[in-house]
Amino acid sequence: MNQVSYRATNSPLGVSGTFAIGIDIGGTNTVFGIVDHRGDIQYRGAISTKKHLLIDDYINELYDAVLPAIDQVGGLDYIRGIGIGAPNGNYYTGTIEYAPNLNWKGIVPLTDLMTAKFQLPSALTNDANAAAVGEMMYGAAKGMKDFIMITLGTGVGSGIVANGSLILGHDGFAGELGHTIIIPEGRFHPGTKAKGSLESYCSATGVRLTALEMLENGKEDSLMRNYAKEEIDSRVVYDCAMQGDKIANEVYEFTGQVLGKALANFVMFSSPEAIILFGGLCKAGDLLLNPTKKAMEENLLPIFRNKIKLLFSELKEADAAVLGASALVWEIKTVG
Amino acid sequence: MNQVSYRATNSPLGVSGTFAIGIDIGGTNTVFGIVDHRGDIQYRGAISTKKHLLIDDYINELYDAVLPAIDQVGGLDYIRGIGIGAPNGNYYTGTIEYAPNLNWKGIVPLTDLMTAKFQLPSALTNDANAAAVGEMMYGAAKGMKDFIMITLGTGVGSGIVANGSLILGHDGFAGELGHTIIIPEGRFHPGTKAKGSLESYCSATGVRLTALEMLENGKEDSLMRNYAKEEIDSRVVYDCAMQGDKIANEVYEFTGQVLGKALANFVMFSSPEAIILFGGLCKAGDLLLNPTKKAMEENLLPIFRNKIKLLFSELKEADAAVLGASALVWEIKTVG
Repeated sequence: MNQVSYRATNSPLGVSGTFAIGIDIGGTNTVFGIVDHRGDIQYRGAISTKKHLLIDDYINELYDAVLPAIDQVGGLDYIRGIGIGAPNGNYYTGTIEYAPNLNWKGIVPLTDLMTAKFQLPSALTNDANAAAVGEMMYGAAKGMKDFIMITLGTGVGSGIVANGSLILGHDGFAGELGHTIIIPEGRFHPGTKAKGSLESYCSATGVRLTALEMLENGKEDSLMRNYAKEEIDSRVVYDCAMQGDKIANEVYEFTGQVLGKALANFVMFSSPEAIILFGGLCKAGDLLLNPTKKAMEENLLPIFRNKIKLLFSELKEADAAVLGASALVWEIKTVG
Repeated sequence: MNQVSYRATNSPLGVSGTFAIGIDIGGTNTVFGIVDHRGDIQYRGAISTKKHLLIDDYINELYDAVLPAIDQVGGLDYIRGIGIGAPNGNYYTGTIEYAPNLNWKGIVPLTDLMTAKFQLPSALTNDANAAAVGEMMYGAAKGMKDFIMITLGTGVGSGIVANGSLILGHDGFAGELGHTIIIPEGRFHPGTKAKGSLESYCSATGVRLTALEMLENGKEDSLMRNYAKEEIDSRVVYDCAMQGDKIANEVYEFTGQVLGKALANFVMFSSPEAIILFGGLCKAGDLLLNPTKKAMEENLLPIFRNKIKLLFSELKEADAAVLGASALVWEIKTVG
């Protein structure tokens, strides 16, 4: 944690630092909330991330959007700090580094900029880590000291907790499980140039590609053939699977097999109490969970079998990252 | 840590708990040492593990062997406790559980038995974890908070340190990286029934099998053809490779490729400062290190490239596990 100085907070009521600001920076939108210690989001808001080419403009708009919410809870004196989840956010340095989906290139000193603007201590981590912390404090991992959070969305992210703490690695970049290679020489990932990474199969994009491959390689009827290629996405696959479409169901079967194999390897690394799945693909429920669990168990050493809970997140997707980001605030070490 | 009660130690000189006993239980032999806080082994000894079918007989002989060494440093009052590394040793429960290479079947309550016999607090972990702690306190990982230790011996073991602590997992069984699947549907492992695990390729047995496969599948001349099949082991492969034998060199090239791919996945999990290789296979030096490093770098995301140190252990193989086991003692929490 980079140490930050901040203004003394002594509220007129003798209460200090009662709320935390949680901010989730996504490629398209930024969502924020004012959160109390129990994880109740008192105020919510959002601004566009994408429209700001300059980070300073973005922070100015964010400040203008958050300030009324701060006033609602009694002013800055009642705010303990700001926690932020962002793609490629680095906890140690407080910087966003080379995030492919954001406008701001290179290394952005985000916590420094935020602290200067808001006069509040700030902490940053990547979005999957933030979600893991949210889950640990308020969701399915409450009370757990060892678990792995896997986010299955546009990409595949992860947050790993061991001994009750996030594994950040020596440089703050630990937990890139989406980029581990599960099928050597497998599907090409245009973003990373790797072949056979978890993300290339188990993201929304991966599900879409698997569906297209299965449709192309087979001749069987499928509801998905009623759609143009460009229209087929993970939502279409889901809708067709729910209507009993055989190929759409096979897409989930295959996706679960790849995911389950990957999870087995992760279990043999950190032996977590639970693996928590989060993100858009979880909508598929048992369609995804059953083959995943089967493949995971088949690939585990006997000592790990039938012990690892495979759970879905208990937090609303919109809330998890904001809650997790806000939770960082309670751990900020401050000077002064 | 299971808490243990132990006799009060007040030496006549007012010095207490100056030494730790480190014990490394291998399938064949048990090695022990009396170690001071700086990691200097004052006395060394060994007994046979294999000859004792009953754990009680084993502990009795161990006691008789260790007692003279204890007396040499001034008696029990100068001993802080006993640290033990053993296959399938569980730190949380102090038990050895279903160790395939030991005579004692089922669950052995080792620390309870040791504490009852020696009247000293005892701590247990698996042999690879013990080696990792030894490396962190006295070897190549001194001062590091995030590293992975890979032991390349008869089997492949691992000890993972993150945030300065061993990752033990919720049940004490974390760090079974030898059993992660690197080549799906690859080589069969008769012990675990898994296909394509790291251990099936990168252990001494794996190197032997790779050599036999390469000899069988090719017709090229090789010094290894001067040996009977049964004679070919990792030592023969090494000797032939050092004499410039092409196939023997290809064995290391292939072994390094598999190991490097595996290491890349591990890096994306915990982003360690270093990976430390340990055990018999390390004798091969650059023959193994160069292809390993190349394959690891090729399979890493750009943010991890050229950052991870790939090192050999700095501890004598015979000493590392004893030192690591003894180091557990300094962290034993006692009730008093």
